[in-house]
Amino acid sequence: MCPRYESAAEILGKKWTSLIIYVLLGGPKRFKEIKELIPDMSDKMLTDRMKELEAQDIVKRNVYPEMPVRIEYELTPKGKALEPVIQSIQRWSDEWM
Amino acid sequence: MCPRYESAAEILGKKWTSLIIYVLLGGPKRFKEIKELIPDMSDKMLTDRMKELEAQDIVKRNVYPEMPVRIEYELTPKGKALEPVIQSIQRWSDEWM
Repeated sequence: MCPRYESAAEILGKKWTSLIIYVLLGGPKRFKEIKELIPDMSDKMLTDRMKELEAQDIVKRNVYPEMPVRIEYELTPKGKALEPVIQSIQRWSDEWM
Repeated sequence: MCPRYESAAEILGKKWTSLIIYVLLGGPKRFKEIKELIPDMSDKMLTDRMKELEAQDIVKRNVYPEMPVRIEYELTPKGKALEPVIQSIQRWSDEWM
């Protein structure tokens, strides 16, 4: 176990982060769509978390030059690889928490 | 995904917590033995984390009435059930972080 483990666990331990990744495992979404799926999270929180997840290369922001411009968030391969991690946390919390 | 998930992820995301659980997956240990395996962690930090993990029923504190008294920390079944979770975080961080 090493600093990389600690960083990974810290990312997943931040409020809303796992939930955002979970929602994006269902496919790319617009900001508004994510908000609708996680109504208790504020706009500012979602913006902040998205910036962190982009900086970690877990989420990618795609800008489509349409009229009006369309912006979608999608998981990178690194982000998609979190699916079994989230599932294992979910399984444990379902059984034990 | 629900508040229980968030709580579980938050526990694992705290600095040192996963490492303590990882060390205890190898069997019950005394305070001093844990410290030797995680030398960078302060006594106070280990004491605090142990209290949290006991409160969460993840770690059990066993007191053996010997001379001098022997105190050992061991994982409960709930704690042992974290092994696949820690493994999945480790696998992901090894590959992607």
